[in-house]
Amino acid sequence: GEKLVVMAGMNVLESRDLAMRICEQLKAVCERLDLPYIFKASFDKANRSSITSYRGPGLDEGLRILADVKAELGVPVITDYHTAEQAQLVADVAEIIQVPAFLVRQTDLVVAGAEAVMKTGGWLHVKKAQFLAPWDCKNIVSKIGEVTGPDNPTILCERGASFGYNNLVVDMLSIPAMKALGVPVTIDATHAVQLPGADPRTAGGSTGGRREGVPIIAKSAVAAGADGVFLEFHPDPDKALCDGPSCLPLDGAEALLADLKAIHSIVNA
Amino acid sequence: GEKLVVMAGMNVLESRDLAMRICEQLKAVCERLDLPYIFKASFDKANRSSITSYRGPGLDEGLRILADVKAELGVPVITDYHTAEQAQLVADVAEIIQVPAFLVRQTDLVVAGAEAVMKTGGWLHVKKAQFLAPWDCKNIVSKIGEVTGPDNPTILCERGASFGYNNLVVDMLSIPAMKALGVPVTIDATHAVQLPGADPRTAGGSTGGRREGVPIIAKSAVAAGADGVFLEFHPDPDKALCDGPSCLPLDGAEALLADLKAIHSIVNA
Amino acid sequence: GEKLVVMAGMNVLESRDLAMRICEQLKAVCERLDLPYIFKASFDKANRSSITSYRGPGLDEGLRILADVKAELGVPVITDYHTAEQAQLVADVAEIIQVPAFLVRQTDLVVAGAEAVMKTGGWLHVKKAQFLAPWDCKNIVSKIGEVTGPDNPTILCERGASFGYNNLVVDMLSIPAMKALGVPVTIDATHAVQLPGADPRTAGGSTGGRREGVPIIAKSAVAAGADGVFLEFHPDPDKALCDGPSCLPLDGAEALLADLKAIHSIVNA
Amino acid sequence: GEKLVVMAGMNVLESRDLAMRICEQLKAVCERLDLPYIFKASFDKANRSSITSYRGPGLDEGLRILADVKAELGVPVITDYHTAEQAQLVADVAEIIQVPAFLVRQTDLVVAGAEAVMKTGGWLHVKKAQFLAPWDCKNIVSKIGEVTGPDNPTILCERGASFGYNNLVVDMLSIPAMKALGVPVTIDATHAVQLPGADPRTAGGSTGGRREGVPIIAKSAVAAGADGVFLEFHPDPDKALCDGPSCLPLDGAEALLADLKAIHSIVNA
Repeated sequence: GEKLVVMAGMNVLESRDLAMRICEQLKAVCERLDLPYIFKASFDKANRSSITSYRGPGLDEGLRILADVKAELGVPVITDYHTAEQAQLVADVAEIIQVPAFLVRQTDLVVAGAEAVMKTGGWLHVKKAQFLAPWDCKNIVSKIGEVTGPDNPTILCERGASFGYNNLVVDMLSIPAMKALGVPVTIDATHAVQLPGADPRTAGGSTGGRREGVPIIAKSAVAAGADGVFLEFHPDPDKALCDGPSCLPLDGAEALLADLKAIHSIVNA
Repeated sequence: GEKLVVMAGMNVLESRDLAMRICEQLKAVCERLDLPYIFKASFDKANRSSITSYRGPGLDEGLRILADVKAELGVPVITDYHTAEQAQLVADVAEIIQVPAFLVRQTDLVVAGAEAVMKTGGWLHVKKAQFLAPWDCKNIVSKIGEVTGPDNPTILCERGASFGYNNLVVDMLSIPAMKALGVPVTIDATHAVQLPGADPRTAGGSTGGRREGVPIIAKSAVAAGADGVFLEFHPDPDKALCDGPSCLPLDGAEALLADLKAIHSIVNA
Repeated sequence: GEKLVVMAGMNVLESRDLAMRICEQLKAVCERLDLPYIFKASFDKANRSSITSYRGPGLDEGLRILADVKAELGVPVITDYHTAEQAQLVADVAEIIQVPAFLVRQTDLVVAGAEAVMKTGGWLHVKKAQFLAPWDCKNIVSKIGEVTGPDNPTILCERGASFGYNNLVVDMLSIPAMKALGVPVTIDATHAVQLPGADPRTAGGSTGGRREGVPIIAKSAVAAGADGVFLEFHPDPDKALCDGPSCLPLDGAEALLADLKAIHSIVNA
Repeated sequence: GEKLVVMAGMNVLESRDLAMRICEQLKAVCERLDLPYIFKASFDKANRSSITSYRGPGLDEGLRILADVKAELGVPVITDYHTAEQAQLVADVAEIIQVPAFLVRQTDLVVAGAEAVMKTGGWLHVKKAQFLAPWDCKNIVSKIGEVTGPDNPTILCERGASFGYNNLVVDMLSIPAMKALGVPVTIDATHAVQLPGADPRTAGGSTGGRREGVPIIAKSAVAAGADGVFLEFHPDPDKALCDGPSCLPLDGAEALLADLKAIHSIVNA
């Protein structure tokens, strides 16, 4: 009987205005569809392929924008943190703080996040690493539980597993496998379609994507039992400053979310 | 606007009576749900892990049972063939003849199948091999098209890709990738959940399965755009003579197929 | 104390003259290096990607050429067979008959091969399939042993495992894992470097290769304990009618085989 | 004509005495074999599967032990760092500082390491992540080169790639692929044989290993062109406080290193 949770917004913060615009529009869509909505944006892309890629406004300016969005639009927000030191600062603004996939095995980072959200009453959104089996998330959930006690604030997120070089695959069986750990599970359909790394056959130095695959993965994962979706939009995806190739057009959000809601209703009837 | 096609039945033919019973029940379910139904059963499991495993009644007796089922219950049937010589014999009984996954690269086998269905007006159901990329099915579709001309009778079937040792993964993006080749695509959710081969940590000599994953994969794949589903049932799955661990209980068929129909309606609206 | 076995020759038979030339030269190299030599060539490429690819001279003409090579140069030969019917015909000419990788799970084919070599006193060279774990070869060795009794004539061959789409990887730990089954193990370095299938980013319809990787894989595998090597050469690799991209130049054979012999001596000291 | 470089020691620092003992013995072995030797030990295992696993003595005490080993035995040392803040502290003691595999995409960490070794004249040993293609290491080498200029102090290390769940595979072709980036390449044979994560079929919460595979991978990789080896030893591997299952017995070091030296001579002749 639970509603499908929507974590949606933009990849990296580009400007205060764009954040407001995207959040406002997605909030309205989710209100019309009666779906709980959380605004997502990153303040720092700390692991870009290339040193010259755009990384975002940084911690201070980024948290300021997120606080503004919350104040003005009244929505909860989710954003990632990258060091143990950032955990509390981020949790003081964001209801949900996110552990990046590559960092999920860093004990100090995970523990700092757990301590931070315990103080704020927030949640930890943990991206399952590309190198991790779904059942191995048990160790991460346990690390967090050691800090927080039985009310474990973990949400696990599927975002694809390494499948040979320069490719990811989403194993839909990972969703029930992670749900079996007793926590909610989301699908990050945006990052799951990325073709990671530079293709040796092209000159490219940034991470490729497959935009048309995002709705496929989102629908499949909800059909497989995902409790929430994580999606990135842009009014003009090809001009997004980061990960444009896997970014969805903002004006397609309502149709996609309506389908996802309908599938979620069927599998949770 | 197309309806979801249901290819369903049993793994290997165990007896004429059991084939009748399973077909009758599934036919009734599909009539209630208004879904096109094709009965599936194999006469020979030609690639069992172990030489002592049950292989089925063989070609002659198997085709006799399939012909009886057709005559008595008035449904089309699908079954696999394993050599070029068998192609026409099988196509003379079965509306759809199936190329086993491991054999999809055998040119003579594929060509013989194409020639056979061209005579009968039937179809070729080609299981995508565990070692094959979805876009590489193009070569198989082309081989068949060389024989049959523009009315290509190929249906491609996703049944999982090798994912490390002793595991398969279903890449849901393979479904649109195969549909892009201009042919219908089905999901064999039953075989896709198998854990192939003997696990070195157990003594086992036959192929494992994960029954609870079958509905997950089926729902996900229909959400990803599959045109049909391929499913194996048994009144008492744990007593099935082949692949019991990935076999569904017959009395659960209606609930699952109803969900699949509903998801199919949403994504094809 | 055993010597490294060399199975080497050409991919597909192109002409009687070329077969003689390649065999003569490789035989001379192996005599200088004091390594046992077996001539390899295929009479039919039964699983080419494209229906229009060159397949070879076929069974009759192919076996005639192989018999001529044996008669004239006095070397044993290895070639593959593709159906149960071909097994005895091939074993009557070739001391070693080869089960193609995709076909290793076909019980009838394997059993026919075992029966054939039992009559001739030959061997079965079984390519481990791209979808098979090394320990799962146990079932194949057992199927052959059921026919032949305790003097099991199986040689297992590593030729790469599926690693995502359009790529193979050689897991060097597979070599001791297969040797643990009590049979000799070879490395097919030529096919192990192939990039299987059509790359979606190119128009190509045949299987790619990486010639410069062949010596790397061969040396690594011998260092990992392989008892033999399987290599394909051509006087002009870029003009080879099949798999040229993974074919080695004939005049480089001696330097490579000398290195392999030296590594083999170290790891077997 | 270069000699094979040996980075060897223990997994995590257990005590000052044990570090001295292991280093002294390995130093003596490498002197006898005329191989350049660098002592390896970690002060913190920052990404253990379980929160209750032994992590080591920590930064201060760990660096003190490493400095003592250097002072007493006169060998260079290598150890890993886990945050940007640790980079300079570690580089002030260790000639080679190591970027852990999971962290190679963290730009700030890599840049801090590059700045630190530029001051000390040391090197950065970068473990290729399990999710990274070898050619994608180009971006990491470039990030470091942006800081250091043309005398790029990067050494790339192969330690296995994700191969399905709970398994790694070493692609020997990654070694020439990384060497093609213009930097030396080592093989971490110890970590490459790990079976990462908790096996769902056992109760285990720590990372498994396959000790007998370590020499296989080391020999294979040197045969494939590796310039150095990275190996962990213990006088009593089954009592090692971390990663015992993939740890080699100290008294087997000389025989293994002698083989590796001999293979290295052949492939570099």
